[in-house]
Amino acid sequence: MIISVIGAGAATRETVGLAEHVGRELAERGAVVVCGGLGGVMEAACRGAKSAGGTTIGILPGNDPADANQWVDFPICTGLGYARNVIVVKSGRAVIAVDGAFGTLSELGHALGDGIPVVGLETWVLTRAGQVDRSIIVADGPADAVDKALAAAATRDGHRTAGGPASRAR
Amino acid sequence: MIISVIGAGAATRETVGLAEHVGRELAERGAVVVCGGLGGVMEAACRGAKSAGGTTIGILPGNDPADANQWVDFPICTGLGYARNVIVVKSGRAVIAVDGAFGTLSELGHALGDGIPVVGLETWVLTRAGQVDRSIIVADGPADAVDKALAAAATRDGHRTAGGPASRAR
Amino acid sequence: MIISVIGAGAATRETVGLAEHVGRELAERGAVVVCGGLGGVMEAACRGAKSAGGTTIGILPGNDPADANQWVDFPICTGLGYARNVIVVKSGRAVIAVDGAFGTLSELGHALGDGIPVVGLETWVLTRAGQVDRSIIVADGPADAVDKALAAAATRDGHRTAGGPASRAR
Amino acid sequence: MIISVIGAGAATRETVGLAEHVGRELAERGAVVVCGGLGGVMEAACRGAKSAGGTTIGILPGNDPADANQWVDFPICTGLGYARNVIVVKSGRAVIAVDGAFGTLSELGHALGDGIPVVGLETWVLTRAGQVDRSIIVADGPADAVDKALAAAATRDGHRTAGGPASRAR
Repeated sequence: MIISVIGAGAATRETVGLAEHVGRELAERGAVVVCGGLGGVMEAACRGAKSAGGTTIGILPGNDPADANQWVDFPICTGLGYARNVIVVKSGRAVIAVDGAFGTLSELGHALGDGIPVVGLETWVLTRAGQVDRSIIVADGPADAVDKALAAAATRDGHRTAGGPASRAR
Repeated sequence: MIISVIGAGAATRETVGLAEHVGRELAERGAVVVCGGLGGVMEAACRGAKSAGGTTIGILPGNDPADANQWVDFPICTGLGYARNVIVVKSGRAVIAVDGAFGTLSELGHALGDGIPVVGLETWVLTRAGQVDRSIIVADGPADAVDKALAAAATRDGHRTAGGPASRAR
Repeated sequence: MIISVIGAGAATRETVGLAEHVGRELAERGAVVVCGGLGGVMEAACRGAKSAGGTTIGILPGNDPADANQWVDFPICTGLGYARNVIVVKSGRAVIAVDGAFGTLSELGHALGDGIPVVGLETWVLTRAGQVDRSIIVADGPADAVDKALAAAATRDGHRTAGGPASRAR
Repeated sequence: MIISVIGAGAATRETVGLAEHVGRELAERGAVVVCGGLGGVMEAACRGAKSAGGTTIGILPGNDPADANQWVDFPICTGLGYARNVIVVKSGRAVIAVDGAFGTLSELGHALGDGIPVVGLETWVLTRAGQVDRSIIVADGPADAVDKALAAAATRDGHRTAGGPASRAR
């Protein structure tokens, strides 16, 4: 199971702590972390995953694998700039957003538009026509975020994984 | 001057009316409309622009120019799916968002992240860490939205267009 | 009818002459030129089209419309780098390749793989398993290239344009 | 070290055998295989890599990880169609082309245009202006192809990996 973790490249110490915790929890439950491969939340999620022996994939905007933070196992060079955000969310079976700036906002839009489950941890609140949009599943902490993301991903894939190969990172 | 108009493919009659008015105002002031080329707000903006003798460009998600609404002069086939949203906002010197669903939200994120001016007409309100984000310039009607978008685009391009070729659609 | 013209950004005087002639012929027959928007063959094709009162669209790799050559009417900013080559070929109903380097080669591959007709003017010759691939329609000069591209595009679109709107650039 | 293996989705038995051998050799030398994730050469390269305990990444054109062949460890869903070919070649430190059709041709163009080393095994021969282009490094068998790809990748990365982290898949 691959889960996307999204959030800003520049993050406060508190947000970094949340993202690292999310990455660690994901790895402890056997999930692979995919993210944008750069700093801030992305780096913290990767560091957390590696601290628990997990696997990390970074979908980079540029052409150079050296742009990836040091906790990325598999850097994917897209050369697409921030259009790569689409790939970050599509490659996870669910998305966990930790805080986040405008790049994260674009990812929320792409994920929700494609029906990919999104769990939010202190992330954007979206209001349209005077109503708060409830599409983002709100978590009250890193472990809860991971619980909810894995549950949403399992529901999404339910018909498929029942008889599928257990060992693959899908 | 090219201005992007973004909004949902399925829209209420009121929203369609706003988008058509935006398209017409843009054309009357000599601006070219770029949009996602499909229905709803996109089609209404194109129809409005054509009603005033304007020019329209549709950046399509698919491969077939026949997918474009009938008011698109120049269909651009990307084959990129909704990653084409990035191109829609990058190709305008400013963006006008009319209402909008999740695709529009992704475009707001991409535009604001890239420093492209965004004018909003009854669109998403974005709240982060308990604070409403004020990056979207709020308009109180179609004419005001066009005023503000053209002003923001001119400010953005000020140093360049001073001595530039007046006849090009940039 | 939109026709793509592809070729290298750095070109000899002779190649530039061919590309300019192609652009002029396309405009004289009412076709719109789409290209990669930069220099060399792209600039020459646009200049040729404008010399005959035609219309030109440049699909740029970057974010800045000022990167476009001065003969581009409508610069489309993709920010995708050379992945934009896909859009250049998909947006034409046929492709004319004039000489060309590796970027052009990528465009030939994308076009032929998608079934988009390609006319070649002194362009790459492709050999596979000891056999020359005959998928590229060989032209013996600019006018012949335009003849063959328009014929191939009309055949491709035959069922569609029979009753379609005559005034649109599709 | 990540190495890209490219080739057609429909392949002869002989070509499949070559690709599987390439994948196995890459894994035996500790390289990770990245490919387009689908059938034919892509599947064979992944199967070969897994037979030697290697790791495989599939960059898919669509949105569904279930589209990946069964030997892909990490499916990356791009939703970009064949524009994903750019990512396949950019994510490897060198590329090995095994035979190949038009999609492979597009990848050769993107790789060579970006200065990414390409080793060819019974792949396209490219002729321009009457001269065979020698940019593709010709291999005379799977082991030779892997030798040459790893050597080219090491040369390309020489300055960087000297002091870099040895355990990462870059």
